[in-house]
Amino acid sequence: MQEKIDQLKTLIGEVIDLQQTLGVLGWDQQTYMPPAAAADRADQQSTIARIAHIKLTSDEMGSLIHDLASYIGQLDPDSDEARMVKVAKRHYEKQTRVPTEWVAAFTQVTSLAHEAWVKAKVSSDFSIFQPHLEKIVEMRREYAGFFQPYEHVYDPLLDDYEPGMKTKDVKTIFTALRPQQVSLIEAIRSKPQVDDSFLKLEYPEDKQLAFGKEVITRLGFDWNRGRQDISVHPFTTGLGMDDVRITTRIQPDHLATALFGSVHECGHALYEMGFQAKDRRSILGTAASLAIHESQSRMYENLVGRSKSFWKYFYPRLQAFFPAQLGNVSLETFYRGINRVSPSLIRVEADEATYNLHIMLRLELELAMMEGTLRVADLPGAWNEIMKNYLGLTPENDAVGVLQDIHWSAGYFGYFSTYALGNLISAQLWECILKDIPNLPSQIEEGEFTALLSWLREKIHNPGSRYEPQELVQRVTGRKIDPQPYIRYLNQKYADIYGL
Amino acid sequence: MQEKIDQLKTLIGEVIDLQQTLGVLGWDQQTYMPPAAAADRADQQSTIARIAHIKLTSDEMGSLIHDLASYIGQLDPDSDEARMVKVAKRHYEKQTRVPTEWVAAFTQVTSLAHEAWVKAKVSSDFSIFQPHLEKIVEMRREYAGFFQPYEHVYDPLLDDYEPGMKTKDVKTIFTALRPQQVSLIEAIRSKPQVDDSFLKLEYPEDKQLAFGKEVITRLGFDWNRGRQDISVHPFTTGLGMDDVRITTRIQPDHLATALFGSVHECGHALYEMGFQAKDRRSILGTAASLAIHESQSRMYENLVGRSKSFWKYFYPRLQAFFPAQLGNVSLETFYRGINRVSPSLIRVEADEATYNLHIMLRLELELAMMEGTLRVADLPGAWNEIMKNYLGLTPENDAVGVLQDIHWSAGYFGYFSTYALGNLISAQLWECILKDIPNLPSQIEEGEFTALLSWLREKIHNPGSRYEPQELVQRVTGRKIDPQPYIRYLNQKYADIYGL
Repeated sequence: MQEKIDQLKTLIGEVIDLQQTLGVLGWDQQTYMPPAAAADRADQQSTIARIAHIKLTSDEMGSLIHDLASYIGQLDPDSDEARMVKVAKRHYEKQTRVPTEWVAAFTQVTSLAHEAWVKAKVSSDFSIFQPHLEKIVEMRREYAGFFQPYEHVYDPLLDDYEPGMKTKDVKTIFTALRPQQVSLIEAIRSKPQVDDSFLKLEYPEDKQLAFGKEVITRLGFDWNRGRQDISVHPFTTGLGMDDVRITTRIQPDHLATALFGSVHECGHALYEMGFQAKDRRSILGTAASLAIHESQSRMYENLVGRSKSFWKYFYPRLQAFFPAQLGNVSLETFYRGINRVSPSLIRVEADEATYNLHIMLRLELELAMMEGTLRVADLPGAWNEIMKNYLGLTPENDAVGVLQDIHWSAGYFGYFSTYALGNLISAQLWECILKDIPNLPSQIEEGEFTALLSWLREKIHNPGSRYEPQELVQRVTGRKIDPQPYIRYLNQKYADIYGL
Repeated sequence: MQEKIDQLKTLIGEVIDLQQTLGVLGWDQQTYMPPAAAADRADQQSTIARIAHIKLTSDEMGSLIHDLASYIGQLDPDSDEARMVKVAKRHYEKQTRVPTEWVAAFTQVTSLAHEAWVKAKVSSDFSIFQPHLEKIVEMRREYAGFFQPYEHVYDPLLDDYEPGMKTKDVKTIFTALRPQQVSLIEAIRSKPQVDDSFLKLEYPEDKQLAFGKEVITRLGFDWNRGRQDISVHPFTTGLGMDDVRITTRIQPDHLATALFGSVHECGHALYEMGFQAKDRRSILGTAASLAIHESQSRMYENLVGRSKSFWKYFYPRLQAFFPAQLGNVSLETFYRGINRVSPSLIRVEADEATYNLHIMLRLELELAMMEGTLRVADLPGAWNEIMKNYLGLTPENDAVGVLQDIHWSAGYFGYFSTYALGNLISAQLWECILKDIPNLPSQIEEGEFTALLSWLREKIHNPGSRYEPQELVQRVTGRKIDPQPYIRYLNQKYADIYGL
């Protein structure tokens, strides 16, 4: 049996090589690839994805998993072998439902859609992207069909990002969450607004980048095992156990974009850098889910990066970088400014109180497209309507509306909910962290982040994909995903800032 | 049969996707990859190379080629179908001699050797690289063994880069060439030396890069289909029909390095950008050989880029970039300076009169290692000894001696000769070009390079790999590779510069 374990490891190692190679092709596409190379890249990605899928669904994989399934019953279910076989079995069973030719075709469709989305966004012209998105929605509905019977057409998609999670679970959580977020926003709206005009001065790009690098270095980003580049849409990608790359986006007239964007991606990167060396090229050395991933990025961005403790340490440094812009802005004013609540159009720049509404908007639209009640041609109108209802705003063009996010161009349907779930998990974890490290806020005031990182390493990063996300949250916090810690956190934070 | 042609095209297309993907992994490794990622990258490259080799040597490939071999006998031998099957057959027959596991292992060995070579070169410590090179030599000898019987152990290696060329052919050419090069160098040595001290002033890196970009843009480099980055060892890589990337290396105290390096790589890039759109993802849309490749890069670097006509156009522009350094240097002085003949340690910076001796040194050492008469441990000593004999110089350390080139770390044995052959072909083509475009020098004086590029597109680039290199040279010039045009070119050029 040990021989079969080794064979399975080798086979999975090859699949991981291929997936990481796809990652390199994708990273390059979004950072340095020449514009005309889109068609070449689509062919390359399609071929690699096809081969990865063939390996993942091969008879060899199937019989190894079959033979090992009974063997691992005799092992400690928490042993690496048992977990590896269990996770591999899950992937195998899902992937064998999907024809390889579908995978190859979808990879090519989304590779070309990415370029179309970039062009559409630059010129704010949805019509450039529309035929690509129509094809993607059609193929995503086809994809869901491979998993019939299901409770909901959206379930198979959600499950790709949140193993074990159902559409109805997300709806239940969001239903509990929305009225509480809305009443918080209303309470804030009745109070005097805080000033954040100083964030929108001219901030030279190179200095923004340099300060961001100083911050994420302090948080623990390992430059020997990673790098940072510029891209249209910031992202993090793990291209190997020792190759974790983040990107950022700099706005010369908005300090917050690159700064909080970099801290956000750093949270993702710390997760990817925190898998165990023994899990290199193993299916266990991967993320538990996207919501768990987002819990790390949103925690660093918000619970750490928008906290007063954090800026007690970093603000004098930031002022030294930008004396003309911030020399006369007090810490207290700065803190309130970066936490200003104000409904806005762009998700990635949304404040913590309104952020989840951006997600709910997207979930509604995705569900409608998947259920077949919303045509892609009608999507920009539907977007604008819900945006008006939820946040009282109307995008002046599609670039800041329906075209703002990269996700749909990449075929990521079922993905957005994980951002909101990540917010919830981040606060739920934070309550546990503060119990275990009561003086963490004063450590952060000293620019000391190692105890925090060690805690996350042990509880969240090291396990990798050993546990499904709800199981992991349950193990660490004693409860499944629960919106109440996040609501408590928001209410307390904004009570202070807005005097609620 | 048309169906089989289409199947073969599809299969070759996938192999090309994999090879281009390997290209992306290699490009990234040499430009942006984080230092610690070497092991991850080696696994990825090894897996992709293994899969490419399996596809290339598959039974499916074999039977398609077998079935089509007789069919193409009925076709025009110059038809695309006939040429494609012929070239594919050649690759198939070579590659089936090589075990897939050897390919995977060698890819991993060279990927790790690359990182070791970078470290060894930086610290000028051959011992870091030695065990890697020992492994590479051992595996290269093993590789040659797969092709027994052969005339010479070096033949199978040379044939990988120069299809159809034998070691004895190269020796014959080099034997004719060496005395003529040596007597030219001696004649020059008896004359007063020209000044090139102005090239070694401080030249800001960003301006060097900007001027280089202006030059290669003018030569025809298409930025929509390519890009330029910085790397330790400059190279060109074709990552797709519309994705051709060059790198350069900038020395702040030496103008010639980046300038002529960029023009050299641009020559390679124009070749890769010149395959026909109909040959996209076809085995015909690849280079005929490395010597043909080098004939393009060396032509642009030297016959074009070091010509007086070229600088009549570009020198005023260069002076505008660097008025402090070159404002008082005349065109004539500049022209002589960039053509100064002086034995030197670094191949890529060698002048045209001594360059081929650098190649002969490497060929001698490679032959000795492959024949088993030189141990890797003795390589630095042997290098220094031949360097002393050929060029009268002794490297002060191995970084500027045996460690200077990337090639051996990549496993490229049999490669260096192609540089010297490329020199010869470049002059041989140039004589034909001047017959067909008699006023080319005056076009160049006007900064007009389109007629030159069109000629090369038609005669050299468009055919891709349809003809073996000797066949291509014969078709275009009426003769096989011949050292005399190159000797004529050098003698004439230096007679003018040194008053021979």
